[in-house]
Amino acid sequence: MNKQPTRPRARLPRGFRDRGPDEIAAERKMLDAIRRVYESYGFDALETPSLEYTDALGKFLPDVDRPNEGVFSFQDEDEQWLSLRYDLTAPLARYVAENFQNMPKPFRRYQVGQVWRNEKPGPGRYREFTQFDADTVGSASPSADAELLMMLADTLEALGLARGEYLVKVNSRNLLDGVLEAAGVSLADAEKRGTVLRTIDKMDRLGARGVRALLGEGRKDESGDVTKGANLSPDAIERILEFVAPEKDENDFALRLAALSGIVAGASGEKGIAELSAIFRMLTDCGYGPDRIQIDTGIVRGLDYYTGPVFEAQLTFPVANEAGETIVFGSVGSGGRYDDLVARFTGQTVPACGVSIGVSRLLSVLRAREQVSEPAEKLVMILVLDKAEAAASFKLAQELREAGFRAEAYTGESGMKAQMKYADRRGAAIAIIEGSDERARGELTVKDLVLGAELAKSVGDRAEWVKEQPAQVSVARANIAASLRTIMDARKG
Amino acid sequence: MNKQPTRPRARLPRGFRDRGPDEIAAERKMLDAIRRVYESYGFDALETPSLEYTDALGKFLPDVDRPNEGVFSFQDEDEQWLSLRYDLTAPLARYVAENFQNMPKPFRRYQVGQVWRNEKPGPGRYREFTQFDADTVGSASPSADAELLMMLADTLEALGLARGEYLVKVNSRNLLDGVLEAAGVSLADAEKRGTVLRTIDKMDRLGARGVRALLGEGRKDESGDVTKGANLSPDAIERILEFVAPEKDENDFALRLAALSGIVAGASGEKGIAELSAIFRMLTDCGYGPDRIQIDTGIVRGLDYYTGPVFEAQLTFPVANEAGETIVFGSVGSGGRYDDLVARFTGQTVPACGVSIGVSRLLSVLRAREQVSEPAEKLVMILVLDKAEAAASFKLAQELREAGFRAEAYTGESGMKAQMKYADRRGAAIAIIEGSDERARGELTVKDLVLGAELAKSVGDRAEWVKEQPAQVSVARANIAASLRTIMDARKG
Repeated sequence: MNKQPTRPRARLPRGFRDRGPDEIAAERKMLDAIRRVYESYGFDALETPSLEYTDALGKFLPDVDRPNEGVFSFQDEDEQWLSLRYDLTAPLARYVAENFQNMPKPFRRYQVGQVWRNEKPGPGRYREFTQFDADTVGSASPSADAELLMMLADTLEALGLARGEYLVKVNSRNLLDGVLEAAGVSLADAEKRGTVLRTIDKMDRLGARGVRALLGEGRKDESGDVTKGANLSPDAIERILEFVAPEKDENDFALRLAALSGIVAGASGEKGIAELSAIFRMLTDCGYGPDRIQIDTGIVRGLDYYTGPVFEAQLTFPVANEAGETIVFGSVGSGGRYDDLVARFTGQTVPACGVSIGVSRLLSVLRAREQVSEPAEKLVMILVLDKAEAAASFKLAQELREAGFRAEAYTGESGMKAQMKYADRRGAAIAIIEGSDERARGELTVKDLVLGAELAKSVGDRAEWVKEQPAQVSVARANIAASLRTIMDARKG
Repeated sequence: MNKQPTRPRARLPRGFRDRGPDEIAAERKMLDAIRRVYESYGFDALETPSLEYTDALGKFLPDVDRPNEGVFSFQDEDEQWLSLRYDLTAPLARYVAENFQNMPKPFRRYQVGQVWRNEKPGPGRYREFTQFDADTVGSASPSADAELLMMLADTLEALGLARGEYLVKVNSRNLLDGVLEAAGVSLADAEKRGTVLRTIDKMDRLGARGVRALLGEGRKDESGDVTKGANLSPDAIERILEFVAPEKDENDFALRLAALSGIVAGASGEKGIAELSAIFRMLTDCGYGPDRIQIDTGIVRGLDYYTGPVFEAQLTFPVANEAGETIVFGSVGSGGRYDDLVARFTGQTVPACGVSIGVSRLLSVLRAREQVSEPAEKLVMILVLDKAEAAASFKLAQELREAGFRAEAYTGESGMKAQMKYADRRGAAIAIIEGSDERARGELTVKDLVLGAELAKSVGDRAEWVKEQPAQVSVARANIAASLRTIMDARKG
């Protein structure tokens, strides 16, 4: 028997984290902004539970009665497996299949929530994070895809990104299949198709040279490790490179599509060209040009379930990691068309498309640029010097709250010096002190905690102004709220 | 090998639920209101992960290497047990123990989030729900307890409950131990102490007669089942009943405490009287009287970890369940002092007290009274009659969104009749139709979807007014935003 130690060690589980008030406030502001855009497009909120039956998430391993290791799973008391959702799309498919008869079609919902991945954590890679999705279920129309692209661009701008600081890049699974067909790769050969698609996906990282090697005999990387190639013919390789890395990078939608239609082949290729043509006609008519949305044939998106257009939003400015190094930040939002997810339950194909914003990832970038900092309301700290008279401090706090301040009377048991330190630690703007002499005179001492810092950093006229302000004033108890308002407003000046 | 069926059935796990836009909007409004009050008292936001190590939650069964069945638990890849949090207090204790050196003291945080219970679900009893907690850690001062009571009352009023519609009821674990001591029940006899406390907890349900029987030889309920009694002496029983069900129900704090101090005994009794005296002196000085906060010696609170004052907020008005039957609704918020939670990790006693609001429970009551309904912004639905011209509809939707409307162009593939039905299903206020004749004239048809319902239900002057409004008007495309604003504002009139 493996006895537990009497005293557990207090520690966060690996890959999880605690978050403080600044980040929480910034995230709330960000979620509000996304919500406003999604709602303005007519999407309605839906909330599904954190847990779903594992089979409903499609996360049983094939042919074994055991869930995929990538999800957190456990058995219910009736032996059924439950898993924490790893995205918001699988629960949506379950919801749609369960309620299909009674929902308006198309069904348009947004959902924000945490998702969990039972994966090895790493720097900046957590096992619990927030996604914000919107999906249109029950429409095969390219207008539904085009709308998601416009909405993604609108959302990123609503979050404070300037036009040009992001790009939404679009491709189509059908277009990719069309170039494979043109290159003579059989779509029925799932393994080879997977290898080629994964190679195309590495274009950003490896460049044309690396991709060419991987499509051919293979590639030796810097460490000397050899990756086996796809062994395509030189003709096939050039065809694919012409597709994924054209000599002339043409941003005009019509010209780019005309060039692509000369490269791809077969029914898939035709379908892909038709899809993107319809989408980009809609984008052009609505005024969304290549400064916001572009075709990028290197976009693959890893998930198996996409069946048509796929897209992702990338940042165009350098992003630094925690160590200050510039990194390739990757996608901040992505999505595409998936027509088969509901069919898993019902057998009936329900066309659908969606977008997902990686809230936690994007938040870290926006916070680093101080674009979603939400200035916390400054605290007014009321010191308690005479415990027998503590109620007077708490009554004062009540009055100040009623007057709209954020006010706290000291609940600890330490003396004046520790209380002043506590006020500093809490970032309080003001400390209020009521000595016994003052009480007799009906007065309070108001101490400005921001002033010291101001004096140290101010220059020129402002320094003069600051010096003239007394750091500590006596104020009539009867007028405290009005006096505080005057002092705090002056500080903002 | 137990093969999975090829097609899973789409179904919610038992005890979980999906939630729609109205409830989500109402909850968001409710959470904002609670947050504003908690923040105004100087509490700062903290967020801990959904998962914690099972030992950190204190949820290993004694002497076995297996988690308590009441929590959802699974093993990490390194064999450590993780559990979904079942409340927000145990993660707080972990956080405080882990970060004690670097935090301001007292540490005051609030947290809102879901908690999970692996328990048998029932009507209105879910296995995932939301709590909103605030705690002061590192203060033994009764002012910290008093403040939570005032804040709970303020919060319930901020949520729309009138004074008198709720009561915050306070007791003390020490007072309970004091009456046990007076009744000759040894505090060292954990079993007997537990039996007596559970019996006191049933006062509301069983009344004095039932409690008297259970404290004595036992009780036969309506079904004939016999519950064993605590076998206390008649004197001891009368002493406890005098405590828990006084002949004269005295609401004046001072008089009630004076009466209680004559009943309880021992060091615990003294401590309980001193605690409640200090708390109620503070409440009185701050203007919180028995119309908001009262002593109730029947309050026990089930959790083992409370060590001092305990309290809960109850609704005073009848609440109906889904079947329309009036039910005893129980507590909507509760809390108390727990001085030993952090010591579990560090060995060091850290005095703490907290309050928790059962958001999901309270939300259901407030929604039934329509006190947190958040009127959804009405949708403007733009029909798409000519697919080749769909982009014009989407461009119009963009313009309307920029003008501040919630606007959606139809993304489905059905005809006009189905589109009108869809607009109804979505609760749209307005449908906009652009026929080819109109397009030639630069006009749009604006159809008022609310008017039919208005006509049916309006009486008197308003009926006259409504009749004069045309249900459908032609509007110049160039002035559409201004015209829509006029129409929608008039509808509110």
